[in-house]
Order: sequence, then structure tokens, then C-alpha cells
Amino acid sequence: MVSRQKKMAVAVFSGSIDRLTGLAMLVTGAVTMGFEVELFLQLWGAYAFKKDVLQRNMNFSEFQDKAPEVAKRLQELKLPSWFELIREAKKSGNLKIYVCSTAASIWGAKREDFELVDDIIGVGEWVEKMSEADITLFV
Amino acid sequence: MVSRQKKMAVAVFSGSIDRLTGLAMLVTGAVTMGFEVELFLQLWGAYAFKKDVLQRNMNFSEFQDKAPEVAKRLQELKLPSWFELIREAKKSGNLKIYVCSTAASIWGAKREDFELVDDIIGVGEWVEKMSEADITLFV
Amino acid sequence: MVSRQKKMAVAVFSGSIDRLTGLAMLVTGAVTMGFEVELFLQLWGAYAFKKDVLQRNMNFSEFQDKAPEVAKRLQELKLPSWFELIREAKKSGNLKIYVCSTAASIWGAKREDFELVDDIIGVGEWVEKMSEADITLFV
Repeated sequence: MVSRQKKMAVAVFSGSIDRLTGLAMLVTGAVTMGFEVELFLQLWGAYAFKKDVLQRNMNFSEFQDKAPEVAKRLQELKLPSWFELIREAKKSGNLKIYVCSTAASIWGAKREDFELVDDIIGVGEWVEKMSEADITLFV
Repeated sequence: MVSRQKKMAVAVFSGSIDRLTGLAMLVTGAVTMGFEVELFLQLWGAYAFKKDVLQRNMNFSEFQDKAPEVAKRLQELKLPSWFELIREAKKSGNLKIYVCSTAASIWGAKREDFELVDDIIGVGEWVEKMSEADITLFV
Repeated sequence: MVSRQKKMAVAVFSGSIDRLTGLAMLVTGAVTMGFEVELFLQLWGAYAFKKDVLQRNMNFSEFQDKAPEVAKRLQELKLPSWFELIREAKKSGNLKIYVCSTAASIWGAKREDFELVDDIIGVGEWVEKMSEADITLFV
């Protein structure tokens, strides 16, 4: 009997680097455990994956006054950035990244304007994918 | 053999219009695909559905400095607001909206003080509903 | 036939007291209904459970200008704080709280530096646990 590969599907609304770090940790853990992972980038999530935004995005979602302390600590611990974690996870072949077609329209962007994105899809197709996952999250 | 209708259940904590737009997109997609959708409005989510708040709520959860740009872009694309999307999805008959009884107490509000709300229920009843869904999210 | 105990698993990224209150309500409801509940504290979630942070944390994630009004209202209604709700739920024996090992490193903290925490675990172990739950959330 072959057991089905487990699956995690995340609607990534947030584009803040602290929340994206939390997401990237979960993606890393899931890919390491052999899960199939799918991300669906909505408004700010799509924004954060834009090639012209990626390097200069410093937005924190909470405790903005503690951002410098956390950033310094991450550097001391030599932790990879959220994007490096996602890029590394992508190499496993088990991570697919989709941009919401409405978000792509809002940013006036095509697939090649985003980093690591496999495809631009509609929200109906996404919801179907999400309903087959063992873990569903909204970040 | 009749296949069961798929279900999405979302605890809506946020009352920020950017996050509610992300939610409304997912709700629209789910209803279009024939899913049954249930929302449970907690603190700020309940606040955003109050009749006296709905029209004047301009709160963004992230990238506040980019809010005017995004608002302008949504208008150019003639995208319906988060509330228009939810109201439209409601017409399908497959969307139920509940307010958390504690949130209703906090805002000193009754069912008729909220737009589109079906009922005020307790969190225990909600958790039971949520456990039967294919997709569970916290927004 | 013995029916399996239902399970809710939440990745708690946020450390803001409004979101933690929304979480604590869901945890209370789930434990009351006999669910097994597991929390995994990531960056700000771990921060909020630190013994030296717990009492002085006043951070709100949204509508900061309305925080005093909400705080006053919660007091009038004699609602327990998010932490009192979690502590009460813990007494049921059905709530387990884990800190993400990376978050513990970032804060330079050991298990005894956190309130109510059962263990520090890695994200791979967490994702496995999460995949067995009926309700999965990211707060």
C-alpha cells in the first residue's frame, strides 16, 4: 500500500518580513519532512516576491520598534533570510508558488516580474488545491 | 454515490480592509466552486461588519504608506470592495456569517447592528463547525 | 467503536494581545468541547510568553487608536486576559504548548524562561503534529 504524500497549502496575504520568516520556517520544516507545499500569493505576499521589491522590503507586521534588535539577532545566529529559506526549499522540487491573478493585475506584473513563481492562477483553482491539503493556513 | 459538499471555515479576527479583501477573494473563489463557506467574526472582524463602521473603515494591516496607491489601483481595475464581494457571495446561499458572542458583547451590539450576519454564536459551537471543514483559516 | 479525539493545531506567530485574545477564545472553546489543542510559538508568539514580557506587553496588531476603548470594555465585562484564558485551558490537560527552537535561540531563552510551555521542539516535528489535526491555523 502506497501512502499518499502529505500536503500543506498556504494563502500568503502578508508581505511583512517577520511573518514571511515564520512562513519560511514552516515551509522548510514541511519540505524536509517530505510534504508537498503550495503557496498562493495574495496582495502583499505577491508584492514581497516582486523582483524590484525583494531586496529593499523591511516591513515588519508587529513590534516595529524591536525590528532592529531582531534583525541583528538573526544575523548573529547566521539564519538565512525568509527568501533564502524559500529558495532553498524550492530546490527540493516539492514547493510550488502561485500568484493570485487579481494580485498580479493590481501590481501590473507578469510571471517573470516575480522571483521563484511557477504560475499565475485564479482563486477558484487555488481553493480546489487548498481543499486537498492536510494543513491549510492563511499568513 | 453522492459526494459531500466541500467546506471552508474561517475565523475572521482582522478588521483591516486589506486582509478582508484577501479573505473576500477566497470566499468568492470557494462559493464559485460550490463550497459551503462559514465565517466567524471575532474582535476586529465583528467591528468591520458593524453598520456604523462599514463605510468609514479605512484601516490597513500592513504597508500603510502604500494604501492610497493600492486603493487607486483597485478603483482603476473596477474591482468590487471586500464588502461587495462578500454580499455577492452571500446570494449563492452557501455563505453563513456568525458573530462571536463575546465580540458582540464587547461592541455592545445585537445581530441587527451588523451587516449580512446570520447569527451570534458561542466559540464552542464554532469550533465544532470548524472541525468539519476541509479548509480552516484564521484571518 | 471508539471515536478519535478531535485536534486543533495552531502556529502562533503573533505576539499582539488582541490577536492572542482571539486565539485564547478559540483555545477555550476547543478545550471545552473536548478537543486536544497544540500551540507552536514562533517569533512574536514566543516573545509574548516570556516571563519578563508577559505583564508589560500592550502591543495591538490593528486599530491601535482603539486599544484603550477595547481594554476598558474588556475590564467592564470582567473578561479574563488572553493569558488567564490560556492558563485556565491548560488545566484541562488537553492543551500542549511548544516553542519553536529557532524562536528560542532568537530570544536566547530556555524552556523555564517561558510561562506554561511544555517543550522546545523543531519545526519538522511541529509540521508532522499539525498534519494530524482537524483544525490548522496560523495566528
